Amino acid sequence: MNEKGDDCNASASEADLLSALAAVVGKQFVLNSDEMRAKHSADTIPYRKICAAVVYPSTVSEVRKILQVAADFHAQVWPFSRGNNWGYGAKSALEDDAIIMILERMNRIIEVNEELAYAVIEPGVSQQQLSDYLRENNIKLWMDCTDSTPNGSVLGNAVERGYGYTSYGDHFDCICGLEVVLPDGSVVKTGGEHAEAKTWNTFKWGSGPYFEGLFSQSNLGIVVKGGIWLMPEPECFNVFSFEIDSDANLAPVIDSLRDLSLEGAIQCHTHMVNDFQMMTLLRQYPYELLDGASYLSEQARSNLRAQYQIPLWSLIGGLYGSKEVVQANRARIKKVLLRYGSLEFFDEKKIDFAKKFIQFAQSAKKGSIAAIVSNLFKPLISVKPLEVMRLLPEISGILKGIPNESILTSAYIKSKNPPPSSNLNPAEDGCGIMWLAPALPASGVEAQKLLEITKPLYKKHGFDFSACFTLMNSRTFFFLLGIFFDQENIDEKTRAFALFNDLADTTKAAGYKPYRLGINSMDKFLEEVPELGTFFARIKSVVDPTNVLAPGKYVNRNS
Amino acid sequence: MNEKGDDCNASASEADLLSALAAVVGKQFVLNSDEMRAKHSADTIPYRKICAAVVYPSTVSEVRKILQVAADFHAQVWPFSRGNNWGYGAKSALEDDAIIMILERMNRIIEVNEELAYAVIEPGVSQQQLSDYLRENNIKLWMDCTDSTPNGSVLGNAVERGYGYTSYGDHFDCICGLEVVLPDGSVVKTGGEHAEAKTWNTFKWGSGPYFEGLFSQSNLGIVVKGGIWLMPEPECFNVFSFEIDSDANLAPVIDSLRDLSLEGAIQCHTHMVNDFQMMTLLRQYPYELLDGASYLSEQARSNLRAQYQIPLWSLIGGLYGSKEVVQANRARIKKVLLRYGSLEFFDEKKIDFAKKFIQFAQSAKKGSIAAIVSNLFKPLISVKPLEVMRLLPEISGILKGIPNESILTSAYIKSKNPPPSSNLNPAEDGCGIMWLAPALPASGVEAQKLLEITKPLYKKHGFDFSACFTLMNSRTFFFLLGIFFDQENIDEKTRAFALFNDLADTTKAAGYKPYRLGINSMDKFLEEVPELGTFFARIKSVVDPTNVLAPGKYVNRNS
Repeated sequence: MNEKGDDCNASASEADLLSALAAVVGKQFVLNSDEMRAKHSADTIPYRKICAAVVYPSTVSEVRKILQVAADFHAQVWPFSRGNNWGYGAKSALEDDAIIMILERMNRIIEVNEELAYAVIEPGVSQQQLSDYLRENNIKLWMDCTDSTPNGSVLGNAVERGYGYTSYGDHFDCICGLEVVLPDGSVVKTGGEHAEAKTWNTFKWGSGPYFEGLFSQSNLGIVVKGGIWLMPEPECFNVFSFEIDSDANLAPVIDSLRDLSLEGAIQCHTHMVNDFQMMTLLRQYPYELLDGASYLSEQARSNLRAQYQIPLWSLIGGLYGSKEVVQANRARIKKVLLRYGSLEFFDEKKIDFAKKFIQFAQSAKKGSIAAIVSNLFKPLISVKPLEVMRLLPEISGILKGIPNESILTSAYIKSKNPPPSSNLNPAEDGCGIMWLAPALPASGVEAQKLLEITKPLYKKHGFDFSACFTLMNSRTFFFLLGIFFDQENIDEKTRAFALFNDLADTTKAAGYKPYRLGINSMDKFLEEVPELGTFFARIKSVVDPTNVLAPGKYVNRNS
Repeated sequence: MNEKGDDCNASASEADLLSALAAVVGKQFVLNSDEMRAKHSADTIPYRKICAAVVYPSTVSEVRKILQVAADFHAQVWPFSRGNNWGYGAKSALEDDAIIMILERMNRIIEVNEELAYAVIEPGVSQQQLSDYLRENNIKLWMDCTDSTPNGSVLGNAVERGYGYTSYGDHFDCICGLEVVLPDGSVVKTGGEHAEAKTWNTFKWGSGPYFEGLFSQSNLGIVVKGGIWLMPEPECFNVFSFEIDSDANLAPVIDSLRDLSLEGAIQCHTHMVNDFQMMTLLRQYPYELLDGASYLSEQARSNLRAQYQIPLWSLIGGLYGSKEVVQANRARIKKVLLRYGSLEFFDEKKIDFAKKFIQFAQSAKKGSIAAIVSNLFKPLISVKPLEVMRLLPEISGILKGIPNESILTSAYIKSKNPPPSSNLNPAEDGCGIMWLAPALPASGVEAQKLLEITKPLYKKHGFDFSACFTLMNSRTFFFLLGIFFDQENIDEKTRAFALFNDLADTTKAAGYKPYRLGINSMDKFLEEVPELGTFFARIKSVVDPTNVLAPGKYVNRNS
């Protein structure tokens, strides 16, 4: 609790707070054992603030009442849709003793409009839930999902401006119409709309000031309902993969992707990972190759690339549209990219065949006839080992908006044990990862420069360089830098933080701003633009006069 | 000036205010003669508030100083980029005695980035200026323009959320990176960016709360610089026109346009005008056909349609992309739309030929051999009369982002004199028009309903029904209702207002909100959502504590 002791309620005990919360939601929906408080403070970043309690409202009315209770007790409320934004803070507040409010019980799918291609959902709706709902009800709409956990919140990710893979991959861009509980308990709908406005979920700007963005990456309100646009099932879906084996080709490829995106031949959010990032998907960390160092030598990396048949950079993307348009765009992509690497297209038949073959090969007993047959035919399908081949159908699922855990396994690369077979939870399972994702203009020169200023820092701090270029819009890439470390290795943990700070400072000084901040970086937000800090602080002061809502999450009250 | 007499400066004379303004910008850039004050208060809506003075700053510093002068004198400042939003208020404040600030001298094109396809410009840059700049410098980028005056501000239109015709036709959506002077004179850049952020003009959301929209359709700041995305010149450009001759086909066509847009076959903002709206482009008002009424009979309209060979509804749109994609989309559009009306495609050769033919035919003297030749060959090119044919090259220009006055002429339909040959200014020329554009979900049922509730109101108030359905995004149309009237006819002027209010109330009650408000409708904004009014009022109170900036423009200070 902040500002203790300046009010008549200051003497109220923690027990009183818990009772008050229990009176709102029921005792079973307030957690405050030491175990639960620790569990809900865990993230893959070693940033630990222990909360006062975890509370699970099920209605807008309960959300409002919890805010009132918190204000009465001078406590902070930190709301999370489902709390799985691992590597950025998960369910962590900036300070100890906050009330962590988790909205996962508010998980109604309120409407799916197939004709107009949108859904209206509550923040507790998970990626898996929405995906299942669409398929079970035979609704010909595809959602866009992240490559993180299927248990993650659709709306939470969108409001924090996460991204996926399809042409609907800019999740905040696909938000249309939010209902928000303000810190004082009042409820507003974005769009300047009256209650019955028919375009609440079809026209983002509404009338008057467009202010939906105020509730994105901020602490100005709690999103309790939202519209999100979905993709009508396309007539044709293809996947393309592209491999480049020389850093010298990186810049022209980035330029080409931009041009293909600007002209519309690529409409998805292509992901291009480097060799190490790819390896995190394939196996546990090869400690045996370290030879006394804390990261792999160039030679060891090269050997691993040869072993798994993976290139320096691997790109994957999807094509969506009529058969003719997909065909035309395939030809265009081929014409532009082929000179820089190897390119392959997969239609749904080919993907399905690969999937079946992998299942057959994986289930074949060593030495059996099935194994011999699969070994015989495998080269006809792909030169890649099975553990690489299996990524195709899995990532193809994500490219169709069907969430799965295939990419999430990478979080476990430095864990003692391999990832569990399902329900991955890297935070609770003690995985160590931090992310930094600076945005860059979609230009080869910029990509090259970012590579040059970041890669040496990994070496300096003793880590394996791990990176992904994601095409975010036709004019912008995100450069997702991952730091994988062993949470039980104190030295490595310390070095991971040092690397993170070095990367953050270096990229920022060069003009590349991260698209989103982790809880450990909030204090540096706007440090260079105090006039903007003042502007936000003023808004915060009137929207949240008691400073009850997630103080310091992007927006500070005093600046 | 508002709140007179409550301060030490209250006794300051108007002369003192003018001197203070002149001290900032120079005497020649402060206008305050009766003639100038009247001229700058004119619009095509008969809403007249006479300003105290018109001031033309040329720098950000001057903008800031003018705000300070206004605050000192308790005057209001109403900023306009170029002030040509005719039919919505033009350069009019809500009250008399405001300082009208026109930013047309701030007209620098600061940067055009051809690779990343954007421009950074000041608010004084006109459509014509940007269009000329791109062509004169051989920059392979197309802007999107409105069909209003080439003298209009690019940035001003975008900030007020105007729209055009191409796939970049949602102008606010194409804004990326604004620099804004706040009412207290401080300057902020949107995007949560530090001064040197490289993605200021490529990535809209930046980091932290996205708040660019706060300066759109509002009174919270003065936009003094902005990035706007441009379209790389496509390999192939086609125009398509589509005509339907039965209201019964309207609903399925609206549904089809939505589906074609959702699947990506149509990416432009198609405009579909009714017969009367089309007639406003062709001629002065046919008073001779009125037969005592104040609007045309069904028979008269039918005769005019036959005379000009125009249908009930005429749609026009553009196709942009590689040759193959344009070809595929043509086939798709044909397959879907052909059953409902007649469809025609024009490539650039065909458009160019039509343009040359029209020039030849128009310049041919009556009875000359040239006239005989053109009459002979005309049917091979089009069955339409020349005055309809000429619209093709003119609107094709707009579909390529080259502004012209061909549509703007419609404003003069009820004027005594036909439109001048150039430099049209309907406000100063005394034309009478009001616009109301409710947004509707992209659904045939909704379009039908809007038609049914609005069309009879025109009859009731004695006006010709004039409407246009514009595809605004894949899920939303705007229904632009025009009221054309004779400003010198007091009865008609009164009825025009009555019709406007009736249309506004009726559409709103049915759940259709206008995408933008005219100065005469500001008092009704948010009347049904007081909680949102309170939210905005709070923000206004801290962002503009002296209430100096355009009080009541969308946002009220007290609500």
